[in-house]
Amino acid sequence: MMKTTLAVDAGGTSSRAALVDASARRLGSGRAGGGNPTSSGVDAAATQIALAARAALDQAGNTPGGPAVAAGSPVVITQAGLVSDAYRRALDAHLRPLGLGPVVIEPDLLGMYGSGSASPDGIVLVAGTGSVAGRIRDRRVVREVGGAGWLLGDGGSGFWIARRVVRAVAADLDDIGPRTALTPLLCQMIGTTPETTSDQAHRRRSSALDALIRSVNDGPPIAIARLAPLAFLAIDDEVALAILDAAVDRLALLVERVTGLDSDDRDATLVVGGSVLVNGLLPAVCSARERLSAAAAGARLVPVADGLVGAAALGLRMLGEDVDDATLGRLRRDLAAGATR
Amino acid sequence: MMKTTLAVDAGGTSSRAALVDASARRLGSGRAGGGNPTSSGVDAAATQIALAARAALDQAGNTPGGPAVAAGSPVVITQAGLVSDAYRRALDAHLRPLGLGPVVIEPDLLGMYGSGSASPDGIVLVAGTGSVAGRIRDRRVVREVGGAGWLLGDGGSGFWIARRVVRAVAADLDDIGPRTALTPLLCQMIGTTPETTSDQAHRRRSSALDALIRSVNDGPPIAIARLAPLAFLAIDDEVALAILDAAVDRLALLVERVTGLDSDDRDATLVVGGSVLVNGLLPAVCSARERLSAAAAGARLVPVADGLVGAAALGLRMLGEDVDDATLGRLRRDLAAGATR
Repeated sequence: MMKTTLAVDAGGTSSRAALVDASARRLGSGRAGGGNPTSSGVDAAATQIALAARAALDQAGNTPGGPAVAAGSPVVITQAGLVSDAYRRALDAHLRPLGLGPVVIEPDLLGMYGSGSASPDGIVLVAGTGSVAGRIRDRRVVREVGGAGWLLGDGGSGFWIARRVVRAVAADLDDIGPRTALTPLLCQMIGTTPETTSDQAHRRRSSALDALIRSVNDGPPIAIARLAPLAFLAIDDEVALAILDAAVDRLALLVERVTGLDSDDRDATLVVGGSVLVNGLLPAVCSARERLSAAAAGARLVPVADGLVGAAALGLRMLGEDVDDATLGRLRRDLAAGATR
Repeated sequence: MMKTTLAVDAGGTSSRAALVDASARRLGSGRAGGGNPTSSGVDAAATQIALAARAALDQAGNTPGGPAVAAGSPVVITQAGLVSDAYRRALDAHLRPLGLGPVVIEPDLLGMYGSGSASPDGIVLVAGTGSVAGRIRDRRVVREVGGAGWLLGDGGSGFWIARRVVRAVAADLDDIGPRTALTPLLCQMIGTTPETTSDQAHRRRSSALDALIRSVNDGPPIAIARLAPLAFLAIDDEVALAILDAAVDRLALLVERVTGLDSDDRDATLVVGGSVLVNGLLPAVCSARERLSAAAAGARLVPVADGLVGAAALGLRMLGEDVDDATLGRLRRDLAAGATR
């Protein structure tokens, strides 16, 4: 029977799984809810990961535990944050009945890096809701910079950009900051209208500001990260450009810090992932990518969608298979196709 | 029977009440939990305010609803945020059985201002957990600047200072920011030790940073405001001084915005309240006060502890009494003495 491996990229809002055979062919894909034990809780995270795994097995035509999944198919889960023993036990309890195991949990940074490069050594930068950079050596994360969370760090992340966007709009509406094109964009988004100055003079406070305060505080703070794309939409607006410029400064600093650790980084690969640098609109992102590549001593920049391909590559290597850049490219196309089903 | 009024300063963490007679003599004081309907909920806020009122009546030797409280004693409650009809009804339901009423709810800015000035026109700045400035005309708040909350605004506030403190320490520990004396201060506070650089090189990440991340995220974001005083403790530290300097810039901007509304502000009073400017350590606060006074076109700066005296002054005026600066001074001493019982 063909050997198989199950790859899972477990994120805070969704978990994706893919069953892959030893020749790196996708057999099935699945998706479920958030699978991070820190944000979702140990048992909820394990449940969602098992749901995604089950969906991938079903798509591959398996009955759970049936013969088409080779016994001892390794599961590689990539995720952020700390891994507790209780979480490992919960995963085993949920995945063993599906005929899967052993279970290996790797840092999301390693999955993201592995999605973009087959080399054992390189640099990775993730700028999604949060931001973190890592130095990879011998397929291990040997140094991590950033990733301290939205309150303590994550400079240049989606949250960081969005926080500056909403504060710039609040300051504009409150007349303690410069006028910005972000204001009508955000007001339209939350269904209000910025008043003219003469209206404001007759109120204790702008009613648009009151509406913004209500809207932004109607949910957890981290939820404002969804507003980051406004900075990319306000083309030619000086306030928005300054926010993006400062964001790239912060991200470049992370990259410099992990690049400086090795003297032989001149030919390294910089894998970048996360919505800020991957889904952001051009041309802001193009110029950002150039600056980040420069910060990484001229490394080749490879954007990736997520860590699922990297998790699959780690699983294939556990099966004793060699994974080169050509295989990675095929996996990227194949798993991206599976994601849209 | 002597006419009386009950003053309540209802804050997010505690509510203070004082029963005062028409000659501005304190008859009794009381204190209870948080009385802000936005943060505590309508019914919980009304309950705490009634508890504080009851304690003040008890101290004055009254049985609730008994004869020593004059019928129709006005209640003046000063508090931040919006006032709903449901909240007014809850207050009536809790306070009427105590023989109190009518109930008047005024903005906390007006109470704070009234604690420091008997003039009907002036300027007030509050920098506690949040920050807001107001322009008072004819004893009404005619313009409010700032106070948008910690996520959208509140530049220069305790939260704002504390957020910069914890981020500066996180960046120091993560080697993406300058060394600062804030780091050993904060590490000592949370019971950890910053590693030496040679230790750090052998770890994926500083263990002190991990400890800081856990500590800071172990509670609601706003709770970090308690760390603001660290900025005042790190004397001569450039990072701390830069944070305080930027904070005063933000506060001065708020003051300028409300000062600029009148051309005759040259002799006005600037009342300042809130822990940042009142409890902060010298000499940082002294220099800040000078700059704020300058921002208010040279207004006389009067620091106040809270809005309780202002609430009492509003109640006395409802009884038809005149309240001048001498009366205010006496009320301040009298109510402060009541607070320590």
